[in-house]
Amino acid sequence: MPVRTIDVRERVMAKNDELAAGVRTRLRAAGVPTFNLVSSPGSGKTLLLERTLADLGAELHIAVITGDVQTQNDADRLARHTDHLVQAVVTNGACHLDARQVETALDAIDLSDTDLLFIENVGNLVCPASWDLGEDAKIVLFSVTEGEDKPVKYPKMFREARVCVFTKMDLLAHVPFSVVRATGIALEVNPGLQFLYTSALRGDGMEEWYGFLRSQLRPVCAL
Amino acid sequence: MPVRTIDVRERVMAKNDELAAGVRTRLRAAGVPTFNLVSSPGSGKTLLLERTLADLGAELHIAVITGDVQTQNDADRLARHTDHLVQAVVTNGACHLDARQVETALDAIDLSDTDLLFIENVGNLVCPASWDLGEDAKIVLFSVTEGEDKPVKYPKMFREARVCVFTKMDLLAHVPFSVVRATGIALEVNPGLQFLYTSALRGDGMEEWYGFLRSQLRPVCAL
Repeated sequence: MPVRTIDVRERVMAKNDELAAGVRTRLRAAGVPTFNLVSSPGSGKTLLLERTLADLGAELHIAVITGDVQTQNDADRLARHTDHLVQAVVTNGACHLDARQVETALDAIDLSDTDLLFIENVGNLVCPASWDLGEDAKIVLFSVTEGEDKPVKYPKMFREARVCVFTKMDLLAHVPFSVVRATGIALEVNPGLQFLYTSALRGDGMEEWYGFLRSQLRPVCAL
Repeated sequence: MPVRTIDVRERVMAKNDELAAGVRTRLRAAGVPTFNLVSSPGSGKTLLLERTLADLGAELHIAVITGDVQTQNDADRLARHTDHLVQAVVTNGACHLDARQVETALDAIDLSDTDLLFIENVGNLVCPASWDLGEDAKIVLFSVTEGEDKPVKYPKMFREARVCVFTKMDLLAHVPFSVVRATGIALEVNPGLQFLYTSALRGDGMEEWYGFLRSQLRPVCAL
């Protein structure tokens, strides 16, 4: 029976990879850089996006696909900060988004009027690591209220990510957490990881975050 | 294919439930109350257990089974605080413990010399909700650094739990989190939930936590 389970799982994953490749082609053709935000529940994905939408809304058209196990709370929070589309996907108990859900959500988004797309995944450091959504890169959020050793405990996620955004830096004085140590541990797992140090509440590091996002925009061809 | 996947999944779950029932019978026969600690990654399961082992070690023989995706870091941290057994289970990528892993781990624990057993599950608010480990009760940890709406976003976990332990209460003054509102939201999901409010770092609420644990001990029959 275990063999059969793996067999089914492998076929489901292969189908997901195929759909993700299609999503990636579609997003690249439209020139829309896409980031898959992953983290523990409560690491601050929604707050980072709220502030980003509020601060960059006048400059960039940012679309968001949010995945949640239940509720549309995150989508509702984000919708307050943007006139652009926030597309909610409720996974009904599943622990991650999959490429088919993103493909369906894209149908409701006008990509020709979108500069940047965020996919806010389900809060979970295990399952989303294995599911390609067709994004350009995974960005892992790492709250300073968590343990410094998260990267070695969830190595797949930190290996899959291209950027690690430390969050809740405003709490650093109140928690037993060394950013230097945590960065070192993350680099052991993924030497190519890029780091940002933010507090969406207080504003630390937000300019660096916006600088990173701007650097990812596709050049617009002059007509 | 989806139908077939569900079929395999249901049989795997049925097998797990059968093994969990066996574990439960074994633990009850030995008179060992057992708690399955579940939460987001970084909510403070290990620190709560470290302090509990340090403070109650002289009074109670406490065994711990820790589950981690990779590493034995949590088990190593806990082992410093107890002479009793800390049994590490590395799930090799799986997002939850299952009953077979607990059954195997129990073989290494002398239940006749154990007053209380903790199972520290993988940090994940989705998957562990569906896997019975043969415990007496699930205890969900809820850090005040997370969002107040976690219970409605992860309703299955909060419905499955009997006790909700708020953690990191020492950070309450520094975070936009209302314990009253979060408690209300949790009660909407599970009106029978019992609450404790703790800071394992500063010591808040630890006596109440120990009081709860003592209340769960099985009476020892006089010879």
